[in-house]
Amino acid sequence: MRDESQIIEGRNGVLEALRAGQPIDKLFVLDGCQDGPVNSIKREARKRQVPVSFVSRERLDQLSETGKHQGVLAYGAAYAYGEVEDMLRLARERGEDPFLFLLDNIEDPHNLGAIIRTANLAGAHGVIIPKRRASGLTAVVDRTSAGALHYTPVARVTNLAATIEELKKQGMWFVCADMGGETMYDLNLKGPIGLVIGNEGEGVGRLVRESCDYVAAIPMKGNIDSLNASVAAGVLAYEIVRQRMKG
Amino acid sequence: MRDESQIIEGRNGVLEALRAGQPIDKLFVLDGCQDGPVNSIKREARKRQVPVSFVSRERLDQLSETGKHQGVLAYGAAYAYGEVEDMLRLARERGEDPFLFLLDNIEDPHNLGAIIRTANLAGAHGVIIPKRRASGLTAVVDRTSAGALHYTPVARVTNLAATIEELKKQGMWFVCADMGGETMYDLNLKGPIGLVIGNEGEGVGRLVRESCDYVAAIPMKGNIDSLNASVAAGVLAYEIVRQRMKG
Repeated sequence: MRDESQIIEGRNGVLEALRAGQPIDKLFVLDGCQDGPVNSIKREARKRQVPVSFVSRERLDQLSETGKHQGVLAYGAAYAYGEVEDMLRLARERGEDPFLFLLDNIEDPHNLGAIIRTANLAGAHGVIIPKRRASGLTAVVDRTSAGALHYTPVARVTNLAATIEELKKQGMWFVCADMGGETMYDLNLKGPIGLVIGNEGEGVGRLVRESCDYVAAIPMKGNIDSLNASVAAGVLAYEIVRQRMKG
Repeated sequence: MRDESQIIEGRNGVLEALRAGQPIDKLFVLDGCQDGPVNSIKREARKRQVPVSFVSRERLDQLSETGKHQGVLAYGAAYAYGEVEDMLRLARERGEDPFLFLLDNIEDPHNLGAIIRTANLAGAHGVIIPKRRASGLTAVVDRTSAGALHYTPVARVTNLAATIEELKKQGMWFVCADMGGETMYDLNLKGPIGLVIGNEGEGVGRLVRESCDYVAAIPMKGNIDSLNASVAAGVLAYEIVRQRMKG
């Protein structure tokens, strides 16, 4: 998950980045550090809803590139985030039913990039990711998205389940990918739809899964457990595309 | 493509590995090096059809982990390769039409691993890769295949187009993924089929493409060029799965 070109180290650098509204994915602070400058940084981070992790000096030293972190280190996002409203507007402008991807804690930036690439080509109107416990829009994501980040908006939300409930009120419905669901070919995947893809190891979280209207399963004929997360997203997305093309 | 746990360096190590029949993906030899031991290594490599690259001392130094390459360095395969015949036999044993993946120079081991994983779960009987200009079965491939390498045979062939022609004589037919083809949903993808996936950057080579019976296109609605190679393989493979399940 480390993206070397986007690490900001040291008190001044981090505080300036936060105050300038530069997109920050995550902030690391030396555990127990309570002095004035560090408290200012924590306050700014809270104001901007940047997740903060309190870590040991060893961990900070390990994350640091310069060795001069002064107890704070931030991961900057390579790209600015969009808003969910923009995605719905984009769908309206195109005269299409909304088609969104929701990623429940995709951690690998290569997977995130590949999924944004797929979302773009499948004609989705945006990708929604959670603020915590997930890869942000780093330079690795940009590269593996093959440029799709410039076209397909990505929004970060605090609570994915709450966002799903909100969008359901606006007429969308949600399908999540999970084993034990109904075979995707047998589901009606037309209309305004959100496709929910789970974490690489743990799948879709319980709360998010319970918010979904359907659970779709990709038929598995082999000896192992699951597809790569970005492959699974692609397979499901294109089943949606197929059903939409049939009109 | 570098897989650090599988690098063999130095004249003795490389010669022994070759003589023991240890699977070697690629051999690097210092350009211009003509002494006895190096000539023995080149002879063994030729005998076992291991591709040899002649490179500069700078390149070897760069590839070397120990700094003691003595002018030769080999990339070992993490797994033994299977044979195309084994795949056809596997299909017969299962009472299924053969379903093979053919990869025209996939270079990224993460993509290769993800595709082998997909092949396993889509119920394919094997994966065929070319000997040259492609990632071999390194430890990275093993890891990204999520164990599928232990179940799904992978064969290496000298000439992919020739292998296709040979398999066509045995009743198989071949579809390759490429833009400008017919939309995959409109093709009949049932029966004994080989799915041909092209290189990440260049797509399917001309000769291989000309050997294929059909060119299938994944519908692209976005702003960028193409899906990630392993995602494209997954999307096409599951269109084949869908059509096979319909019976």
